[in-house]
Amino acid sequence: MSAIYLDANATTPLAPEVMAEMMPALADFFANPSSVHKPGQDARALVDGARERCARALGCDAREIVFTSGGTESDALALRGLRPRKVVTSTVEHPAVMGASEGAVRVPVSRSGELDLEVLSRALPGASICSVMAANNETGVIFPIRQVAALCREHGVPLHVDAVQAAGKIRLDFPWDLLSISAHKLCGPKGAGLLLVRRGLELEGVQVGGHQEKGRRAGTENVAGIVGLAAALERAVAMQPTTELRLRALRDRLEAAAREIPGAHVAGAGVSRVCNTLNVAFERCEGETLLVALDVEGVAVSTGSACSSGSLEPSPVLLAMGYPRDLARGAVRFSLWNGNTAEEIDRVCQVLPRVVQRARKS
Amino acid sequence: MSAIYLDANATTPLAPEVMAEMMPALADFFANPSSVHKPGQDARALVDGARERCARALGCDAREIVFTSGGTESDALALRGLRPRKVVTSTVEHPAVMGASEGAVRVPVSRSGELDLEVLSRALPGASICSVMAANNETGVIFPIRQVAALCREHGVPLHVDAVQAAGKIRLDFPWDLLSISAHKLCGPKGAGLLLVRRGLELEGVQVGGHQEKGRRAGTENVAGIVGLAAALERAVAMQPTTELRLRALRDRLEAAAREIPGAHVAGAGVSRVCNTLNVAFERCEGETLLVALDVEGVAVSTGSACSSGSLEPSPVLLAMGYPRDLARGAVRFSLWNGNTAEEIDRVCQVLPRVVQRARKS
Repeated sequence: MSAIYLDANATTPLAPEVMAEMMPALADFFANPSSVHKPGQDARALVDGARERCARALGCDAREIVFTSGGTESDALALRGLRPRKVVTSTVEHPAVMGASEGAVRVPVSRSGELDLEVLSRALPGASICSVMAANNETGVIFPIRQVAALCREHGVPLHVDAVQAAGKIRLDFPWDLLSISAHKLCGPKGAGLLLVRRGLELEGVQVGGHQEKGRRAGTENVAGIVGLAAALERAVAMQPTTELRLRALRDRLEAAAREIPGAHVAGAGVSRVCNTLNVAFERCEGETLLVALDVEGVAVSTGSACSSGSLEPSPVLLAMGYPRDLARGAVRFSLWNGNTAEEIDRVCQVLPRVVQRARKS
Repeated sequence: MSAIYLDANATTPLAPEVMAEMMPALADFFANPSSVHKPGQDARALVDGARERCARALGCDAREIVFTSGGTESDALALRGLRPRKVVTSTVEHPAVMGASEGAVRVPVSRSGELDLEVLSRALPGASICSVMAANNETGVIFPIRQVAALCREHGVPLHVDAVQAAGKIRLDFPWDLLSISAHKLCGPKGAGLLLVRRGLELEGVQVGGHQEKGRRAGTENVAGIVGLAAALERAVAMQPTTELRLRALRDRLEAAAREIPGAHVAGAGVSRVCNTLNVAFERCEGETLLVALDVEGVAVSTGSACSSGSLEPSPVLLAMGYPRDLARGAVRFSLWNGNTAEEIDRVCQVLPRVVQRARKS
């Protein structure tokens, strides 16, 4: 990889050791885990083993794991599987949660991206489910899941936590009833994810047909993807403390350099954010122009969620935080991963002021 | 692989050349295809290229392809995406179609598994969608899609064809409005499939959120899976004429040997079936016992759909064909793939009579 890749919140490279673990599932243990014969049972053992590994990494019961095709499916299953009448969520959720929660009560956030817990508390009575992200994909802002969980418990509302951007970056030691994880944000494969479903919670499948995943997710298991997910998750959780220290130092160095540029606004400044994310809006700039200029310099960043790219609209997350449209359009997201080096960050710190200056409108 | 694998309708081994094509997508072109930067556009090019290859292999427009996580998702998207009020389907569809078509009118089949076109014709008026499989996963019986399509056209009903078990075995040269394909039945990877959607047909996404697949399937694209699907489909379509000749000869040899066993009933005998499938029910036998006995001999077969395995009930497909329950319980499915050799089939022909004899109840 020649580019300096700072778009880890969009996706991450597959770790070679994760890929190595996937190879036998791709090449040798090819059978259908639902088949009764020996090759089928060998494939089943891979899926069962992966389930145990995920359960250990997440501190849950293996029976609480439903393997899916990724974060979007996990979110949709959580939100639709309870057949909710009333959904409470926030105004800054990922498009996957937004899309699966039509008509939801959307709790606002502050200018710094903090969840308004008072509004949340008032919205909870009568809700069928509350869905909030552990960390925001665009800003990295961490929601106070413990406090949200306490409010949910008080009102008897099941809590879904979208932990897609939090896993591997913070400890997932908060309470949940449902929790979404995606492999490809953790140096695992695309096309694999999981939903945790707390035992006792009645969840109906959305994709139905075969009996796989105890009827909660029909379709032949993506064995290699599941093995890759387990390997990636285990690795990400084990590395999380060092990842956090290392990436925070790199991110803070980059953030300091960005702040020195006049008219720079760091999203979620002063509030708790995950270690790898820096969202900075530059006045009198187009984020898209900055992105392209950085790309030319060999630096890969984004202007927001990859799942919203192609849209000419400014980031809905920043707008929900109360950014003026003009400023929101000037936002660039830097999101680091374990492969980034101090040299790479130094290079970006060097390049950035010049790129912003050039991109500025008169 | 040491076992003689005769369970290709459950899944197939990943072809080494397909795996080789997937490797760069796994190892190098890891970025999110929705990302605007160079690595993102490189990943996008892989997805676009795969889409073109699939379109050429299927003789359709690239814009008619929606990539999914597999056959079950494709079927569900076809059936739910039109928001149908009335669904017409058959009594022998795959569980994926059955599960996504609650309350459907289910057209019966004959004892040989032939679709009752008169009943179908009477059911079509007022239908929102008609969904039938091109070839049955358990018996291999081929439905007359051209005739079904003519009836659908007459009544203005969109036709969904579940071609998961037909692709690579027969020519897919019949009309369709929607068509499902799964990669792992074609020596491609698990976790990848596609739905064809005829241009002009308004299909709403089921998994919504991001803008991927033109809003018809949200979620980061499984780039390696999509590349593997394209490679596998291209290969399967190119090899189809030779596959058909070769597997039909092997299957017929196996079928002749099975028929010599007293009390053997071949499903769909005398009607058009795909080249690779032999479903034979042995009187006074438990299919499960036969499966286990064959497994001990190193022969991997199934008693029906892997997606229904674990169930103690006899095959719903055979019951729908009017099999007595006792006979249906004695059914075993042999489904061949390109890797099977004449020597393997000879060995099974040799072993089978003895296994059946031993498994017979007094």
